[in-house]
Amino acid sequence: MSSQPPHATLLIPGPIEFDDAVLQSMSHYSESHVGPAFVNTFGETLSMVRKLFQSTDSAAQPYVISGSGTLGWDIVAANLLEAGEDALVLSTGYFGDAFADCLRTYGANVTKLDGEVGGRPQLPEIEKALSEKKYKVITITHVDTSTGVLSELKDLTALVRRVSPETLVIVDGVCSVACEEIAFDAWGLDGVVTASQKAIGCPAGLSISFFSGRAMDAFKNRKTPPTSYFASMKNWTPIMQNYENKKPSYFATPSPQLIHALHTALTQILAKPLADQFKKHIEVSDKVKKAVTDLGLKVVATKKEDQAHAMTAIYLPETIQIADVLPKLATKGVVFAGGIHKAIATRYIRFGHMGVSALDSNRKDIDKALDALRDSLSEAGYKA
Amino acid sequence: MSSQPPHATLLIPGPIEFDDAVLQSMSHYSESHVGPAFVNTFGETLSMVRKLFQSTDSAAQPYVISGSGTLGWDIVAANLLEAGEDALVLSTGYFGDAFADCLRTYGANVTKLDGEVGGRPQLPEIEKALSEKKYKVITITHVDTSTGVLSELKDLTALVRRVSPETLVIVDGVCSVACEEIAFDAWGLDGVVTASQKAIGCPAGLSISFFSGRAMDAFKNRKTPPTSYFASMKNWTPIMQNYENKKPSYFATPSPQLIHALHTALTQILAKPLADQFKKHIEVSDKVKKAVTDLGLKVVATKKEDQAHAMTAIYLPETIQIADVLPKLATKGVVFAGGIHKAIATRYIRFGHMGVSALDSNRKDIDKALDALRDSLSEAGYKA
Repeated sequence: MSSQPPHATLLIPGPIEFDDAVLQSMSHYSESHVGPAFVNTFGETLSMVRKLFQSTDSAAQPYVISGSGTLGWDIVAANLLEAGEDALVLSTGYFGDAFADCLRTYGANVTKLDGEVGGRPQLPEIEKALSEKKYKVITITHVDTSTGVLSELKDLTALVRRVSPETLVIVDGVCSVACEEIAFDAWGLDGVVTASQKAIGCPAGLSISFFSGRAMDAFKNRKTPPTSYFASMKNWTPIMQNYENKKPSYFATPSPQLIHALHTALTQILAKPLADQFKKHIEVSDKVKKAVTDLGLKVVATKKEDQAHAMTAIYLPETIQIADVLPKLATKGVVFAGGIHKAIATRYIRFGHMGVSALDSNRKDIDKALDALRDSLSEAGYKA
Repeated sequence: MSSQPPHATLLIPGPIEFDDAVLQSMSHYSESHVGPAFVNTFGETLSMVRKLFQSTDSAAQPYVISGSGTLGWDIVAANLLEAGEDALVLSTGYFGDAFADCLRTYGANVTKLDGEVGGRPQLPEIEKALSEKKYKVITITHVDTSTGVLSELKDLTALVRRVSPETLVIVDGVCSVACEEIAFDAWGLDGVVTASQKAIGCPAGLSISFFSGRAMDAFKNRKTPPTSYFASMKNWTPIMQNYENKKPSYFATPSPQLIHALHTALTQILAKPLADQFKKHIEVSDKVKKAVTDLGLKVVATKKEDQAHAMTAIYLPETIQIADVLPKLATKGVVFAGGIHKAIATRYIRFGHMGVSALDSNRKDIDKALDALRDSLSEAGYKA
């Protein structure tokens, strides 16, 4: 039995439903941010971030900083690029476009390759772009939360390593970390930025990122100082290293409560093989996609290989309005999200199936959601 | 009876001890950041921030953003100053110096006036500086957490208004909001940046700031775009305005749990007259300062009028080491902080007496701390 009061099941693509123990950690009594107990908790948390990324490279560096996932883009923009340097941004939706905006804010010279709505830029055009100009950084939105399009991260990284080996491969993993496979060392990634409130299963409020030794070297070799203060690797790196070495250190006050919750969430995730959890997300995703297709509906991500495994963006039938369906779902105790991709925003809804809702089949969250979707569409006059 | 497990009483100058109801709000079940229930909670929270600053100016703008207090400096630096513009920074310790570093990071041309250790820059020298150059911004650390030095904010602001009326008066209120009087409209302030974990009494993780209509105009009249993405007023202003108008809006995901906790903390603060709470902090401060003086110890802030009312930085007797006293205090269930001001770091300790520990005399936190200090010094061989 959950210790949480009855509430609608939150099945948007983040924040997600949280485990009781994680929420209880949020109300941890107050501790000094530089006292031995919290220093130990934060240090263990940083070490667990390494495991989450399947990394054993001691030159790689984790950061956990109060903020949202968006702050991760600022960390990349302010530390790994200097004004006028070139970045290639692969966009599969709203979040790829916004990452490009962030990089431009800090003075990067951005080239953006856009997928068709529901698709992604293809390897040949990416190879062409990489051959024509030397990019300091390429950014890839692993799963764009606006479309549910999954990028082929492993093959893409191999391509970059072959065609432009010095280009840093930076991944927006906000909607993929802990639900899609990411083998940081094995694939040769240089950075992943993510947030706490999606498949990691910890309330929003933390920017979580991880950078390779090569990315850290690129930072150290900057000709100009970093262009942010709060998002500065110069300010945060010694702090993170000290905490991980169980030494107190101060730049800006971390949130002990959020770090406790992240510690609990990561402990739960790492208690089981990551591979099993990726597999379970795939099974649930297959079930959701099949049910959606059986209802005669289309998934925004057109091709199966482009479909994310922890969320589904679903086109509504042309006769059905979002403003009709979402309230009907709510009366059945299920919260989905509306659309956010400008070109199609009024035509689709988003269903997040990640974290405990996907992994804990005792919860019946997915079945409940699929039933509610079926019934809501039917009540709205739709016949499959 | 507290619902929190037994733990050492945290009496550092932030984070502070938190009320049970605030901590319980931290474990609120998951909600959509754009759903009606949370939009209402966030909207009410923003309106309460106005009341916290005793402001009724509808042109003024509150921001509550995931981050730490430090993020507030980036907000000022990236939005209210453009590269090469002049800022006058008044420093009374570590945090004034760091605010200057942050402004320089974004390209401001910083002039810094330093107080003597334990003192503050004096009005005549500030008037002289303001007369010699036109500054876009003056920053004042209301209470520097490293020294416990209080600035004379009301008189200072009046001076700026008289000598250089167009200069924006920006206050670092991290260690003063909710414990020292701040009459935002009446004094003519242009900005206060603060954090959740000190006298506001909500766990760390939120940057809270408030800017005047004049500051917002200065932002709108920029010639260049803001130089941060996550800390951009351009990105956040419409979001904050929509939430306050109870309309869903998205730029980056807020932390519903932290916002719920802030809502609870602000509701508690605003349930009683702010003046009573400022007065209570003064009474407790007087008691602490008297006890410290009676022990033959010196307060770092030399003059009474320069002494903060919610913390006390205390020089240790020359024969006593910090590494001896802090563990002795800990065995008596009291956590103080070490020093942080470079010039004197090894010679003093810091005692935070703010929020529930100062306001709720049933807790006996202050008496317990003073007894523990007296006994610890005695055990260390000190005779008053």
